Amino acid sequence: MSARNAFYAQSGGVTAVINASAAGVIETARKHPKQIANVYAGRNGIIGALTEDMIDTNRESAASIEALKYTPGGAFGSARYKLKSLEENRAEYERLIEVFKAHDIGYFFYNGGNDSMDTAHKVSQLAKKMKFPLTCLGIPKTVDNDLPVTDNCPGFGSVAKYVAVSTQEAALDVLSMAKTSTKVFILEVMGRHAGWIAAAGGLAGREPGDAPHIILLPEVPFDEKAFLARVRQCVEDYDYCVVVVSEGAAYPDGRFLAEAGTRDAFGHAQLGGVAPVVANMVRSKLGYKYHYAIADYLQRSARHIASATDVKQAYAVGKAAVQFALEGKTAVMPVIKRTSDAPYRWRIESAALSRIANKEKMLPKRYIAKDGFGITEACRRYLEPLIRGEDYPPYIKGLPKTAKLKNVPVKPRLNTKFVV
Amino acid sequence: MSARNAFYAQSGGVTAVINASAAGVIETARKHPKQIANVYAGRNGIIGALTEDMIDTNRESAASIEALKYTPGGAFGSARYKLKSLEENRAEYERLIEVFKAHDIGYFFYNGGNDSMDTAHKVSQLAKKMKFPLTCLGIPKTVDNDLPVTDNCPGFGSVAKYVAVSTQEAALDVLSMAKTSTKVFILEVMGRHAGWIAAAGGLAGREPGDAPHIILLPEVPFDEKAFLARVRQCVEDYDYCVVVVSEGAAYPDGRFLAEAGTRDAFGHAQLGGVAPVVANMVRSKLGYKYHYAIADYLQRSARHIASATDVKQAYAVGKAAVQFALEGKTAVMPVIKRTSDAPYRWRIESAALSRIANKEKMLPKRYIAKDGFGITEACRRYLEPLIRGEDYPPYIKGLPKTAKLKNVPVKPRLNTKFVV
Repeated sequence: MSARNAFYAQSGGVTAVINASAAGVIETARKHPKQIANVYAGRNGIIGALTEDMIDTNRESAASIEALKYTPGGAFGSARYKLKSLEENRAEYERLIEVFKAHDIGYFFYNGGNDSMDTAHKVSQLAKKMKFPLTCLGIPKTVDNDLPVTDNCPGFGSVAKYVAVSTQEAALDVLSMAKTSTKVFILEVMGRHAGWIAAAGGLAGREPGDAPHIILLPEVPFDEKAFLARVRQCVEDYDYCVVVVSEGAAYPDGRFLAEAGTRDAFGHAQLGGVAPVVANMVRSKLGYKYHYAIADYLQRSARHIASATDVKQAYAVGKAAVQFALEGKTAVMPVIKRTSDAPYRWRIESAALSRIANKEKMLPKRYIAKDGFGITEACRRYLEPLIRGEDYPPYIKGLPKTAKLKNVPVKPRLNTKFVV
Repeated sequence: MSARNAFYAQSGGVTAVINASAAGVIETARKHPKQIANVYAGRNGIIGALTEDMIDTNRESAASIEALKYTPGGAFGSARYKLKSLEENRAEYERLIEVFKAHDIGYFFYNGGNDSMDTAHKVSQLAKKMKFPLTCLGIPKTVDNDLPVTDNCPGFGSVAKYVAVSTQEAALDVLSMAKTSTKVFILEVMGRHAGWIAAAGGLAGREPGDAPHIILLPEVPFDEKAFLARVRQCVEDYDYCVVVVSEGAAYPDGRFLAEAGTRDAFGHAQLGGVAPVVANMVRSKLGYKYHYAIADYLQRSARHIASATDVKQAYAVGKAAVQFALEGKTAVMPVIKRTSDAPYRWRIESAALSRIANKEKMLPKRYIAKDGFGITEACRRYLEPLIRGEDYPPYIKGLPKTAKLKNVPVKPRLNTKFVV
């Protein structure tokens, strides 16, 4: 069989290490020119396939692909674009197959989260039905760490490290000023449904009294009275209180705290920001001076403080996806299998996309402290290896070096337009 | 003359490197036991002197003092506590002298910003009047970089590096998602009066079109119309727009944007947060999807991404303060004198506290782009050396190691209480 092309696309929110997965795919593919002629990357993710706007990665030097390993963001562009169900929009799936056919694409690598695994799964089913030979591989990526089957998700370890390090650093700052200044510090982190990222803040505390003193998880319905009592207790016992709050923290009735009705001067509902809501509670009910930080995109793009474990795993799942494809596996995703906590050991296995698509893994009960405000030792054992090791990018003039790709388009072969 | 003791205190908002200055003081003092018997540190800054609550730094090992070089926050506690004028509260100054006398303190090292230099100056004047031999040294510290005479302030280089790196990283994230998601990203940084920190965000952009596209400085009155026009232009030209906004950004009449009347559901004025105010403008007037981050304390405690230049200078001013004191200089502060931009060269000199006290250095006009939304080449030449070099802390289990001081109190010698 002669060499065919591969299509690679990044999907959903990007991470500090998704480009390391891209490097894993491209470098591994380049080692097998007899099977894979070229890797085409979708410009802006799957949209690039639908609109036949693909990037010729063969035009990038080995050094540029190497540089992807330390470049945050999505080097080819990602997209928040969920393909509808086959019944609702079969045309989209057929268009994908049409573009793949036109460019002799025999391998489809889709680097994303739950939704993307569903898409990769559907594409593999349709290709089969249409008798178009296509090997479909998912590659895990999500800072939310909410994919099932895999021990953890590439992208999470680095945001976890960022949050743990930032919590530890800010706590030292607040503690040293608490006598005359801020007593309560609130750090808002990502995680709309699952509390993995907020839980990682808990790694900063090693001894009783250490910050963070309170973690507000989406998995635990918010109890204002218990929360305020705990804040007061912390300030009385330790002089200060550090709170890590997930953007997904919610009341027992499911309403997000962030939707608690903050309005601007014109009466418009103000979007986002659970930290100020919590801060206002602290101020109006307890009267303590507070400060809050909202890490937002800084946390998921912080390649400068990436976890070495995470970088290694992100590369490994990209590499394994190509290897699995060349072994003839399809409709699978490389998963990380943990074989030991201490010393930390893991290997890559494959799991059927059908087992992963559209499923969310929440923080299990045994990882949440009884009072709901912290993490357990079991959680710490799980999280700690994921933030291990530093993998610093090279620097020029005080700033991290990043990949500068040419992103040369592949010449279109179809005369048809497709509007997304 | 027999050896006397030294008193060292941290003052005002702490930084990622103020403890490096402390290490400079203590390590240098330890090398001169014939002149300096012990360095007593104020617990919670100057309050520790007023209440006779001092820390015996001789009880700390050399390794612990060494660890201060990579520990953020204020290791002995800092304080937002401004001594009133001599006329208003002479009792406070006299109490200081009384405590210093009781503990045979002949050297006073005050590590802080403008206010603290004023205090150190007044203490030196009063000691003279009271005929108490006291050598008074200021040690510069402020993330705001607003002290006059000195080329720059220890603490600033590291927050500048944090802001530049974070801006660059977040911009790569936003750019890669802009096709289908966030188009405008706003990063709020510190600097209530001077725009040095926001200006440092400008280092992230090297080529036309690079982020940040807009910097909102306190020095430039905010023009909403011009701002929104520029945001729209950026989104049209580059697909996205990154804004770095100083917390001190203000309208022509002096009102802070952050005070623009945001109210919570109960009608309480909501404090802080210029980023959401700017974001709401973008949303209501242009309709673009936005995200914002508020770095808050994360920026000034981010020792993990400290500038090596900054760490070196922070240590150098602590060391020089002791050396100046031993040379008999008093009522002075070590200042950083830049002798060359490229290669970057600097040395430490001394300047009279009277030249520094209560003066603020704003961003000069020649550092601000004509349109008010960016920095000039001259500004870049000034800023770039300050963020050069990485000075990583050691890590244990994925988290930075920090100093664990014993902070043993010095036995009080006075029978009097003093209430602050």
